[in-house]
Amino acid sequence: MSTILENLNWRYATKKFDATKKVSSENLETLTEVLRLTPSSYGLQPLKFLVIENPAVRAKLLEKSYGQNQVVDASHLIVMCAFNDVDDSHVEDYVQNIASVRELPVEQLAGFGQYMKQNLGYMDAPQKKLWASKQAYIALGQFLHACADLKIDATPMEGFQPDGYDEVLGLKEKNLHAVLVCPIGYRSEEDQNQHLKKVRKAKADIIEFI
Amino acid sequence: MSTILENLNWRYATKKFDATKKVSSENLETLTEVLRLTPSSYGLQPLKFLVIENPAVRAKLLEKSYGQNQVVDASHLIVMCAFNDVDDSHVEDYVQNIASVRELPVEQLAGFGQYMKQNLGYMDAPQKKLWASKQAYIALGQFLHACADLKIDATPMEGFQPDGYDEVLGLKEKNLHAVLVCPIGYRSEEDQNQHLKKVRKAKADIIEFI
Repeated sequence: MSTILENLNWRYATKKFDATKKVSSENLETLTEVLRLTPSSYGLQPLKFLVIENPAVRAKLLEKSYGQNQVVDASHLIVMCAFNDVDDSHVEDYVQNIASVRELPVEQLAGFGQYMKQNLGYMDAPQKKLWASKQAYIALGQFLHACADLKIDATPMEGFQPDGYDEVLGLKEKNLHAVLVCPIGYRSEEDQNQHLKKVRKAKADIIEFI
Repeated sequence: MSTILENLNWRYATKKFDATKKVSSENLETLTEVLRLTPSSYGLQPLKFLVIENPAVRAKLLEKSYGQNQVVDASHLIVMCAFNDVDDSHVEDYVQNIASVRELPVEQLAGFGQYMKQNLGYMDAPQKKLWASKQAYIALGQFLHACADLKIDATPMEGFQPDGYDEVLGLKEKNLHAVLVCPIGYRSEEDQNQHLKKVRKAKADIIEFI
């Protein structure tokens, strides 16, 4: 299945997007479904994904992005957010959703609900926030792979001002915070980075068989 | 490109593996290359991936895995590790690697090296360890997607005893710690979880268009 490797070798952190090229609604539909299907701890999905096309909002976000123009030039900007607090109500909504999808009496899931509440209870507020934010990184990994499959360019970014994003997007009021940013679209012909050889550690340095 | 969605819908956190079925060496070659190609912050790859087949080692790890038998029944056990400390020597090795792969004089990359060292310098030791560990989650997301493409089952796990894994695998001496565990192989026919409907939040609850 060399296609996987061809795709992963094709992708790179795009430096300059072609601002005239847009991701089709069909591909956006697929990519948002990929985000929705992201695995997460317990399946709790303590996440929300913003798909931002609005130029005015993106202009404001550019000011919080250390001048990385991909934020405004890309077709769409994905902001991956996690909940600030994951409380019992999240668990209860989740258990309700399982019961509904699998057509089970909710009582049958009481043990699972208790188990999750107990485990979340072992974490204090900052630990829970951190745990939720880590789940966004799983989403990023799966998403970048899907973008590469679809030959859509992407620029994963940790380097932005999270507080600035939270403010511009009003995330605090929604119990959310921005974790990762990922502009998507199509590389500009002018982006010289597309011609650079991919640099990765040698397999022997990063993989160990035991 | 509905194949992506078919694959992601096909996958599930496998509860019971068929212990007689092994992942082929060809597929292992692909999957380890997928891990090697994982994107990471700056491209620094502060990670190491252990691919464990050895039954004795896995029996010891089972004791640190809250009795999750997938650790021993799966074809292979992937342990995703991050560095405890990412110091200047990591940056220097990386810069050297870029220079070598792209056939550039190392001096040309001095600015990039300084930039990375400066940014890493803003983090204290626990922050750097945490930052490195988050990169492993990107690897997990990309890896699970690749497993699904190859119709290889996988069970992503955060729930294990990290200190126990570090001890059994002698990770501390290697400046590493275990972040995530992922048994891979083939689902047992007896695993009833494969028949359960996938539960995810509704798209309207997890995606917002702006």
